[in-house]
Amino acid sequence: MKILKVTCQDQVGIISKISTILFKNNFNIIKLDEYVEPEQKFFFMRAEIEGDSDDSNLKDQIIDQLGEDVFVSLNSLEKKRVVIMATKESHCLGDLMLRGYNNSLNIDICAVISNYDSLKSLAQKFEIPFHHISHVDLSREQHSQKIQKVIDQLNVDYILLAKYMRILPESFVDFYKNKIINIHHSFLPAFIGANPYKQAFERGVKIIGATSHFVTSDLDEGPIIEQDILHIDHSYNAKELSDLGRNVEQMVFSKAIKYVTEDRVFVHKNKTVVFK
Amino acid sequence: MKILKVTCQDQVGIISKISTILFKNNFNIIKLDEYVEPEQKFFFMRAEIEGDSDDSNLKDQIIDQLGEDVFVSLNSLEKKRVVIMATKESHCLGDLMLRGYNNSLNIDICAVISNYDSLKSLAQKFEIPFHHISHVDLSREQHSQKIQKVIDQLNVDYILLAKYMRILPESFVDFYKNKIINIHHSFLPAFIGANPYKQAFERGVKIIGATSHFVTSDLDEGPIIEQDILHIDHSYNAKELSDLGRNVEQMVFSKAIKYVTEDRVFVHKNKTVVFK
Amino acid sequence: MKILKVTCQDQVGIISKISTILFKNNFNIIKLDEYVEPEQKFFFMRAEIEGDSDDSNLKDQIIDQLGEDVFVSLNSLEKKRVVIMATKESHCLGDLMLRGYNNSLNIDICAVISNYDSLKSLAQKFEIPFHHISHVDLSREQHSQKIQKVIDQLNVDYILLAKYMRILPESFVDFYKNKIINIHHSFLPAFIGANPYKQAFERGVKIIGATSHFVTSDLDEGPIIEQDILHIDHSYNAKELSDLGRNVEQMVFSKAIKYVTEDRVFVHKNKTVVFK
Amino acid sequence: MKILKVTCQDQVGIISKISTILFKNNFNIIKLDEYVEPEQKFFFMRAEIEGDSDDSNLKDQIIDQLGEDVFVSLNSLEKKRVVIMATKESHCLGDLMLRGYNNSLNIDICAVISNYDSLKSLAQKFEIPFHHISHVDLSREQHSQKIQKVIDQLNVDYILLAKYMRILPESFVDFYKNKIINIHHSFLPAFIGANPYKQAFERGVKIIGATSHFVTSDLDEGPIIEQDILHIDHSYNAKELSDLGRNVEQMVFSKAIKYVTEDRVFVHKNKTVVFK
Repeated sequence: MKILKVTCQDQVGIISKISTILFKNNFNIIKLDEYVEPEQKFFFMRAEIEGDSDDSNLKDQIIDQLGEDVFVSLNSLEKKRVVIMATKESHCLGDLMLRGYNNSLNIDICAVISNYDSLKSLAQKFEIPFHHISHVDLSREQHSQKIQKVIDQLNVDYILLAKYMRILPESFVDFYKNKIINIHHSFLPAFIGANPYKQAFERGVKIIGATSHFVTSDLDEGPIIEQDILHIDHSYNAKELSDLGRNVEQMVFSKAIKYVTEDRVFVHKNKTVVFK
Repeated sequence: MKILKVTCQDQVGIISKISTILFKNNFNIIKLDEYVEPEQKFFFMRAEIEGDSDDSNLKDQIIDQLGEDVFVSLNSLEKKRVVIMATKESHCLGDLMLRGYNNSLNIDICAVISNYDSLKSLAQKFEIPFHHISHVDLSREQHSQKIQKVIDQLNVDYILLAKYMRILPESFVDFYKNKIINIHHSFLPAFIGANPYKQAFERGVKIIGATSHFVTSDLDEGPIIEQDILHIDHSYNAKELSDLGRNVEQMVFSKAIKYVTEDRVFVHKNKTVVFK
Repeated sequence: MKILKVTCQDQVGIISKISTILFKNNFNIIKLDEYVEPEQKFFFMRAEIEGDSDDSNLKDQIIDQLGEDVFVSLNSLEKKRVVIMATKESHCLGDLMLRGYNNSLNIDICAVISNYDSLKSLAQKFEIPFHHISHVDLSREQHSQKIQKVIDQLNVDYILLAKYMRILPESFVDFYKNKIINIHHSFLPAFIGANPYKQAFERGVKIIGATSHFVTSDLDEGPIIEQDILHIDHSYNAKELSDLGRNVEQMVFSKAIKYVTEDRVFVHKNKTVVFK
Repeated sequence: MKILKVTCQDQVGIISKISTILFKNNFNIIKLDEYVEPEQKFFFMRAEIEGDSDDSNLKDQIIDQLGEDVFVSLNSLEKKRVVIMATKESHCLGDLMLRGYNNSLNIDICAVISNYDSLKSLAQKFEIPFHHISHVDLSREQHSQKIQKVIDQLNVDYILLAKYMRILPESFVDFYKNKIINIHHSFLPAFIGANPYKQAFERGVKIIGATSHFVTSDLDEGPIIEQDILHIDHSYNAKELSDLGRNVEQMVFSKAIKYVTEDRVFVHKNKTVVFK
């Protein structure tokens, strides 16, 4: 099975053209999701296709028919190569490594990068290369360049920020556009910024949440992939909120990564289209 | 906007054929969901289409292309005509009448039928004709025939069993195949049969639920449309479980009706395909 | 069964004192929830008690033991008297009237007040007095005084703002302190202010929610009683979000009202303690 | 902080007696949950207490007051010693080891026991002793005796069945009464027995779930501690259901273990009382 993704400005007959190409090349469509965004008339399509034929010039045939401005991707469901960036908290990193080990997530973890070395032993348990790149005495730019140097040798598809607690410079974020996935410790847009669980405690909310989003240069404003919440009550203090919050963080993060690595997600302006 | 539904044995090129017909007739596909059931290779498609053209022979063109055994429907999103059958409990009936009144559900309630008269005043509040058809001294067949006589004058699309507590005879169920929607007071297949909340209390479960399904002659075995649950704890007695259960019943029932009346549901053997 | 609520500054032995008084008066404690807020050491207790004895001076005995600054209430579970204020939307009002009719909520609705008359026919269906008090040509104070005049003749326990879309003046809010319950159309503190569903659409969130809270003079900042969310996806437009939002609004609102009217809620500063 | 649990036949004045003992010994009650089961009038109480006094004969004082038939426990919140039994699936075992490592669960894992050796390398990553005790050529009794011999040297509080796929003999289950916690791969009582995901697929349900319960000699009939579900749709095949099911299994299992190891759970007949 392969996943075909097509997105472009909408035009009449676009599904007819794509499906006719698939038909002529002897591919069968097992599952198809299509959506036209109503304001700017943008077209999104994801198809799971099956067939024994050669698919090497399928993309070209589609681009020939639909024009240069179309985005087409054709991937098998093999594991995506990822690097994980983290700081000191182990719950998201550990969960991802375990899911990699279990094959319950479509990822191949190439390395872990951290500005501290406290997660080294955890990474080593799973035999994953660990790069300690301290930010001490470095400018934000210098630090991110050192990180980028490591990442560029790994040939990764996605960069997963598993509770990486430093702001990345615009140059870095722009370079890896739509490739950096973050987990934010609140249901955005509530509790933007630091210490969301303390903010939640002080406001007396009855739910806490987490948000996974692509990273853009606007902090906490990138396209949201997935969100969820847990119910809490008055008896949780800020520490217990943060403990509980870790559960919803790791749940939401692994779901978002599942959607992205199964080619279910499109980014369009500051939003996502997710075909679940 | 119109909703096009197509279902048939899968064949290669089927989407190509349908979408080409739509293209040639100047219809644009706003949203498309397609799924091929992998075991018997059955094809299901729902498309929201837009266009000013005449659609009067669209169905015929599709049948011409795909063959006689294809099922095709083309509906606008106008309200579906329904009759509600109930016994004594008012929560589901009341919720549906309120949603009809609010226009928050795609239904036009033509009448309420009950084997008791206790819901009459509630139906009258919303100016909906109420038919009291007592089952006393009637065989199951005789009773259902009296009901059928009323329904057949109403020209309804669906029959909604809003806590109708009597078993309907096979003749009735078969006559209105895939048109009768029930709400069952448990998360099937748990707690089949009577008194599910008492069963739940005795088993000490931590969740209670509800199931909405099409009615077939196998009691509680019809194709499931929607299910959900609520969390409970030890302190709920059987009466409180049943009170709380009403909330999940009315939530699940109105969701299922929404899906069906928006032409999102296909029935295939004992299962449903629901494009949400 | 009666509900005993006690709240005061914590002191050692407080439960011992209260439960000894209950014991001596021959009351049995069926269910007890107690919590000491750790920062200001504030004590909250709710007990469901049973017994045939005279309870007429139970409160006095507790106050005698614990001092003047203690708050004590002793209520039977009889229905609370409420007035509902609304503007034009019917979903929350309708749901509450239906639950009153069903006896599935512990309320006796004395009247409906609205600044428009469009909900009059709905209120009349349930034979509830409807007061149309237009705000046209009145200052905020003048308008609220006319409302207050009506409410004060009704002798109500709570004022339920079922999508009442005007800001109430501080004098009104202070007069009915901890008695006004609002339903806000977002999961606060996200999307404060107007048009939350439009804001949600533009931000591309994957969940929408609702919050029920006591009303204070700080708009949208009152103590939160209950919150919940629904999952959404890219395909919902602002209108569909608002339609769906009504479901979570009415669910959250009736839950909050259930908790308050069953004497499960304490207000302490800007937070609530809710013993579910 | 310490956790005091008391359970016995209800008697008037019981809370008064216990809280007076605590008061006299200078302990303060931070949080108290009490419940009297209405049918057999059984009393359950959990209190979080604080104080610097000697608590060495608190239990004795309570028993002196309430009689011999009372059950009293007084524990600090230190980690409970557990042994994990598993077969071949790694998701629950891995999740528990990670939570032990993170200190996000109140457990100290003393050993892993499996009838296969495939999980050995995972246990070793976390430096936890692994005992491969094959069942091959052994009777059920012989096998369980070998397991019991290992467990008895470990002095554990609880035995966690993290997808241990063999039935344990009655002798074993009775010996460790209320100490064996299982995770079952369905929302019981639905889909009792083997292959629940296949059963779920065939029935076409729209939710799948998991149940954590104490193990008794009645298979799948032990007291339920926690349950939850996930929503699914038609497009999930039996393998995908089972993949997704692992998520809900590990979530429900770790919640149940949290409740038990924080002394929040009482077992009474075939049910639990859980003070969350």
